[in-house]
Amino acid sequence: MDFASIQAFFNRADSFARHNGMSITELRDGFARAEMELQPSHLNGARTVHGGALFTLADFAFAAASNSSGRLALSINSSISIYQGAQEGRLTAEARRVSESAKLASYEVAIRTAGGDLLAAFQGMVYRKAAPLDALPAWPE
Amino acid sequence: MDFASIQAFFNRADSFARHNGMSITELRDGFARAEMELQPSHLNGARTVHGGALFTLADFAFAAASNSSGRLALSINSSISIYQGAQEGRLTAEARRVSESAKLASYEVAIRTAGGDLLAAFQGMVYRKAAPLDALPAWPE
Amino acid sequence: MDFASIQAFFNRADSFARHNGMSITELRDGFARAEMELQPSHLNGARTVHGGALFTLADFAFAAASNSSGRLALSINSSISIYQGAQEGRLTAEARRVSESAKLASYEVAIRTAGGDLLAAFQGMVYRKAAPLDALPAWPE
Amino acid sequence: MDFASIQAFFNRADSFARHNGMSITELRDGFARAEMELQPSHLNGARTVHGGALFTLADFAFAAASNSSGRLALSINSSISIYQGAQEGRLTAEARRVSESAKLASYEVAIRTAGGDLLAAFQGMVYRKAAPLDALPAWPE
Repeated sequence: MDFASIQAFFNRADSFARHNGMSITELRDGFARAEMELQPSHLNGARTVHGGALFTLADFAFAAASNSSGRLALSINSSISIYQGAQEGRLTAEARRVSESAKLASYEVAIRTAGGDLLAAFQGMVYRKAAPLDALPAWPE
Repeated sequence: MDFASIQAFFNRADSFARHNGMSITELRDGFARAEMELQPSHLNGARTVHGGALFTLADFAFAAASNSSGRLALSINSSISIYQGAQEGRLTAEARRVSESAKLASYEVAIRTAGGDLLAAFQGMVYRKAAPLDALPAWPE
Repeated sequence: MDFASIQAFFNRADSFARHNGMSITELRDGFARAEMELQPSHLNGARTVHGGALFTLADFAFAAASNSSGRLALSINSSISIYQGAQEGRLTAEARRVSESAKLASYEVAIRTAGGDLLAAFQGMVYRKAAPLDALPAWPE
Repeated sequence: MDFASIQAFFNRADSFARHNGMSITELRDGFARAEMELQPSHLNGARTVHGGALFTLADFAFAAASNSSGRLALSINSSISIYQGAQEGRLTAEARRVSESAKLASYEVAIRTAGGDLLAAFQGMVYRKAAPLDALPAWPE
């Protein structure tokens, strides 16, 4: 699978990200960007963006970046620190590879507002399976 | 606010949790349980529950538990380790207080299947504001 | 290697733990306890126990517990939350297995004072190698 | 206190770092570098640098950087991912501020070999007290 196919796969097949209005807007080796336009459905009871929405946006970018080699990678551990809230506008999560060995790889993700403010920082580690990404059965249409 | 009011508030006002089919089914001092019935919209491209859905369920229980005193608490840091996937059935996240000081508190959350299998473990820390939870402006109906 | 041999190995071969006055006082399948008597050399500039000393005590218990099966396990990720300080007395770190698969395992560690106060909570994940623990070359001493 | 005084304070007063051969070699606003020359006392039973030694080096840089404003900051949460081992040579930990609010601040620390290889990545959060750093009672020495 080339980068465009992997990006298209994530946008088509990741139901939770799609259900929450998120898409991958750039993908290359060890890097991916996910974006979402804040909607009322992304907010928590304090009327600011939900930690789960921030985490999901970061996790989506992390998944796309860590599978960018075409080899199946599964998240085993991740953490997020949240620095400030947001109520509206477009949020961007950029995931970058920090380290990679045969079985494990680590990524950092920064979530920013359209104005460039850092809302949250995410770190994630994947376990890299031997199987290729497209060995996954039953691509959902 | 008593425990029943706080539970009702989270179920009414947390738009992201509600949009993703999650509800608080029990709340008492320093404890909350969140539940969701797995739907296709909770899955990722590998057709297993999305890490963002697991995180959100845990974060929702954590938010309810950490606000159970009626004093506004905001998540500042959290981490999740994912041990196995799930494709269907009811998932439960139980949040318990581990430690609390004047300004900070820590919680652990376990996510389990209906059969009791541990899917993921979450740790979270909140900053405790002086304001009461119900000082939040404009409760959404 | 039986449990007593593994415990003896960690107490003999872990130079950093030994240099800092830490020892494993109990070890069984998926569990280990490490202890240290607080000394002035464990303190930081604020004259309370150094986060590095707390982390090391927890990491030592985690290493012993995660190698208790006799199969070599290496730490890949860990986190610690510190709830309060301590200036003197005996500290105990107890590591317990939370989850284990063929290649990965997770542990939780609680650090307490002799009086039972929780000072810090630690979570760690290991990668499990195929090699047995005693395949390590050149046992020191 | 100016930067040179704060750096000197950490090198004099942090007993655990000093006991383990670590020193702060640069400090400025929101940044600090800690260094150590690997010794046999830094190793674990697998004869590679102990996770506790790596954590302590990072934590020491983090403490110095987060106190560089002269206002007392205490670590409340930190995590470390370890990518590879090292047996000898000089290790460097550089801590940089990522975010800061009135009460909380976050830092990232990278630990590298003299050759520039990334051994580990550390993230830490502090709670910022109102007290100045030099209000600490009883400066040792």
